[in-house]
Amino acid sequence: MSNGIGTDKKFAIGVDYGTNSARALVVDLADGTELASCVANYPTGDLGIILDPAQPTLARQSPRDYVECFYASVAEAVKMALDAPASASGRFAPERVAGIGVDTTGSSPIPVDREGVPLAFQAKYENVPAANAWLWKDHTSIAEADAITQRVYEMQNGYLDNCGGIYSSEWYWAKIWHCLRENPEVFDAAFSWVEISDFVPAFITGNLDPMTLARGVCPAGHKALWSAAHGGLPSAEFLASLEPRLVPFREHYAPTTKTADQVAGYLTAEVAAKTGLVPGIPVAVGAFDCHMGAVGAGVGAGALVKIMGTSTCDITTLPLESELGAIPGVCGVVPGSVLPDAYGIEAGQSAVGDIFRWFERSLAPAKYTEGGRTLFDLEKDVLTLEPGESGLLALDWNNGNRCVLVDTALTGALIGTTLSTTAAETYRALIEGTAYGARAIVDRLESCNVAVNEIVVCGGIAEKSPATMQIYADVLNRPLKIARSSQTCALGASLFGAVAGGAFANIYDAQRNTVGFKDQVYRPDANSASIYEKLYRNYMKLHDAFGVKNSNVELYSVMKDLIAIRDSVRDSKRSR
Amino acid sequence: MSNGIGTDKKFAIGVDYGTNSARALVVDLADGTELASCVANYPTGDLGIILDPAQPTLARQSPRDYVECFYASVAEAVKMALDAPASASGRFAPERVAGIGVDTTGSSPIPVDREGVPLAFQAKYENVPAANAWLWKDHTSIAEADAITQRVYEMQNGYLDNCGGIYSSEWYWAKIWHCLRENPEVFDAAFSWVEISDFVPAFITGNLDPMTLARGVCPAGHKALWSAAHGGLPSAEFLASLEPRLVPFREHYAPTTKTADQVAGYLTAEVAAKTGLVPGIPVAVGAFDCHMGAVGAGVGAGALVKIMGTSTCDITTLPLESELGAIPGVCGVVPGSVLPDAYGIEAGQSAVGDIFRWFERSLAPAKYTEGGRTLFDLEKDVLTLEPGESGLLALDWNNGNRCVLVDTALTGALIGTTLSTTAAETYRALIEGTAYGARAIVDRLESCNVAVNEIVVCGGIAEKSPATMQIYADVLNRPLKIARSSQTCALGASLFGAVAGGAFANIYDAQRNTVGFKDQVYRPDANSASIYEKLYRNYMKLHDAFGVKNSNVELYSVMKDLIAIRDSVRDSKRSR
Repeated sequence: MSNGIGTDKKFAIGVDYGTNSARALVVDLADGTELASCVANYPTGDLGIILDPAQPTLARQSPRDYVECFYASVAEAVKMALDAPASASGRFAPERVAGIGVDTTGSSPIPVDREGVPLAFQAKYENVPAANAWLWKDHTSIAEADAITQRVYEMQNGYLDNCGGIYSSEWYWAKIWHCLRENPEVFDAAFSWVEISDFVPAFITGNLDPMTLARGVCPAGHKALWSAAHGGLPSAEFLASLEPRLVPFREHYAPTTKTADQVAGYLTAEVAAKTGLVPGIPVAVGAFDCHMGAVGAGVGAGALVKIMGTSTCDITTLPLESELGAIPGVCGVVPGSVLPDAYGIEAGQSAVGDIFRWFERSLAPAKYTEGGRTLFDLEKDVLTLEPGESGLLALDWNNGNRCVLVDTALTGALIGTTLSTTAAETYRALIEGTAYGARAIVDRLESCNVAVNEIVVCGGIAEKSPATMQIYADVLNRPLKIARSSQTCALGASLFGAVAGGAFANIYDAQRNTVGFKDQVYRPDANSASIYEKLYRNYMKLHDAFGVKNSNVELYSVMKDLIAIRDSVRDSKRSR
Repeated sequence: MSNGIGTDKKFAIGVDYGTNSARALVVDLADGTELASCVANYPTGDLGIILDPAQPTLARQSPRDYVECFYASVAEAVKMALDAPASASGRFAPERVAGIGVDTTGSSPIPVDREGVPLAFQAKYENVPAANAWLWKDHTSIAEADAITQRVYEMQNGYLDNCGGIYSSEWYWAKIWHCLRENPEVFDAAFSWVEISDFVPAFITGNLDPMTLARGVCPAGHKALWSAAHGGLPSAEFLASLEPRLVPFREHYAPTTKTADQVAGYLTAEVAAKTGLVPGIPVAVGAFDCHMGAVGAGVGAGALVKIMGTSTCDITTLPLESELGAIPGVCGVVPGSVLPDAYGIEAGQSAVGDIFRWFERSLAPAKYTEGGRTLFDLEKDVLTLEPGESGLLALDWNNGNRCVLVDTALTGALIGTTLSTTAAETYRALIEGTAYGARAIVDRLESCNVAVNEIVVCGGIAEKSPATMQIYADVLNRPLKIARSSQTCALGASLFGAVAGGAFANIYDAQRNTVGFKDQVYRPDANSASIYEKLYRNYMKLHDAFGVKNSNVELYSVMKDLIAIRDSVRDSKRSR
């Protein structure tokens, strides 16, 4: 068959675990048609998150929710798929599911007992926050993360060379260590810690044993300092120097890690029964949402996928045989974390959509917020403006700078306001600021020999904000494609399930058959791009002046330049 | 008598010509009681201003309005004063008016004929904008102003040493010169150009002759490059080098200039009849509004008066015998321009209230603008914040920087935004930014040996915005007094009228008897002042980085510092 599927099993299921809910997607592997999609919200806590008013940085989740929402979302999606009309591969049937893939947030580790059962499944721990899953955005472990970073540099072991140079409070070891301080009893009760993306495949395939369950290279490499180059997890010596009681957690782990195209196990009869599927379906090794989302959007060597939401994740890959030096300021470079035989390269911006929402909530005047109007009304006015016309320039650091400065102690800035600066101009400047931040990442990748020949965008902003997309195309001075699927994470997960199940020879074949783009491509306007080139140079001056120690940047020219650009754009607009 | 008035003439009248209207004020000289006040709006144009849609920077006024509004406002004020109950000096009577003083905007020159009659009084010129008064905020003469500045530096004649170093498009010679380009016929028809503040006293005293009418040292010294030190107006050689046809205008001028405590002339019978006054009342030489306003607010050596409105004017004086070097970046230093035997020193900020209004109009969210709410509602939330708590820092340059950088090609900036920055925090940061700008002026004055021992504030913001006043007191780290009078300009004008009329021996006696302060004094809080000291140091880093060429400022520490200050303020707030 032309679609390369050498089996009758022509459907796959992807399950995407987000911050507040899980989504199951049933995909026809002939062409990527999405037959059915169902969301199940996590029932526990506040929108699925266990909070503690006394500790505003605490964010936990009940691992029970992951199980319940797997059942709920998959069962409903299977039912919908059964009712769906025939697609390219004919009618859906549970027997025709080639495989299941799972992606999740992370680093979100769960403390488990010797059998791999989450401690929170025990009645006595159910309501103890420390015994539940430590959600990615839990920031209680800042002190531990800082200590880890410091120790890496003291020991000069290079552990952070491919992790952006700074260990984050969001990550695996910082959270485990902080548990010792927050709740020593839970710490002692935990035999191992398992990422959600490893836990779900383990649970649905019936092998929870911490010593043998499949550990994905994606969470291990990006968050747990795992690297084949230094023999796996961090050394006992290193962990002991932080806290001797951390050492056992490196031992209670699988001997190696796996890429997401491999089989984690096979669906158990119990889970099959609860979801309307058949037992024995291959389940792929799990990975993080953005990584699988990138695959569902067509990531590959030379193709950068931007997953744009509240924050932004930029993913690309590079063949393993490439000469790869350090990429300073890029969050993570992990072999196999995205595509099995390539470096997975992850960068990102700590706030994009969040900045737009902040503006809408805090500074947008009544005419843009009253009567059910939203930011997208403000966009109409944004679109009447031309690049440079406002004289404004913003730094997009309202939530710090993840890449390429890797510094949370940075803040946003707006330069160039006058007495006639409008809300629409300000909003456009904020969008532009995030676009310059995106450009800085692309420039950094390219300067480190990571080609960026094609950019694909997915996520809510890509579909809802044409103004943002056009500005990005102009600032990046490249065409932007939009992923065809609105659920690239679940789609990517389903593709790994399909490959694990043998429906495709490899993930590249899976992408070729199923991944597509919307017809509309945002193409750069040459005039806009040349103005943005000038503005971007000024952005980089501010970037280096505020963000780089001893950068010695002359800023006197910035306001002058912004005024000159503004006046020239206005003149040429008037003369048209 | 204890009040020092050695005559029965115990009242005076001040007439204050603003941008849109004139106000007449009747004052009891025994104690400054304001018996009557009447405003007359200029009838011509848009709120009194003649505009030209094709030239947005053009702003002219009908000199007829000045005459009509003198009649209307003074006649009504006199009537009201006659009806007023007896004050400290008994009942008002026209015969008891010791003198009249006039203050006006400026530089606002009027082209006049050989007899001193405004060209606009002729039917053929009435509707010709160039033949009317060129209002202070007319900015059609930017090219001419730049050429004047350049020529001063080429000729190294020091003409701008005491004018802030840059000739402004708002000023006398630039406007006259531009008239030649805008309307050569009017230029040729003009025998002389007379500031409003000279025209009104000339008109009501019946001596319009351009060669002899009293020319005030205030407009001449601050705007027309007049200085006794270089022999009066700029040399014929200098003017001829700009444009030979400018030379006659230096000849068609009084032989010298006068301070405002001198007599310009005596009220004519005709004007007396039209206003209910008696002929022969002495009329003082005119001056600019801020200068006379400062006198009405208690300006003197060591006492700085801040007239705070849309923009801000800062006035102080220094005894003539003082050692006075250059005060770089201060707009004007003119002997006799404020008090007769002192240097009048004028500085200012090009936008203060204008910035607050801009924020209200452009960026304040609905909750602060709906239902008739105004900025002063936003102030309630501003007052719940503490210095440094927001982590924000603003540059107050939305309309350029008049002092101490003297650069219109600068713009506003806001540094330190996060995803939780609120509108109230932003507004407070803008207020603080203007306060830092005010502090930079005070620091500059003090570093040039101009003592600032006392600060008095007057104008709308002083009375309406307690948040602004407290922030200024904390940033300046000095108590702020508020002028008792809400009409300090008209009050100051009346005092010069009184001195010219002999009711007081000098202007100091006049101030002593009539000028007072409100009971409420805004005193600095020691803790706030110490936090603002740190923030101001960061403001000055931004100030120098963006505003001073080759300043070589390290900005990397600024965001870090703002975060550290913010976190420490929040910690201490929480622990209270």
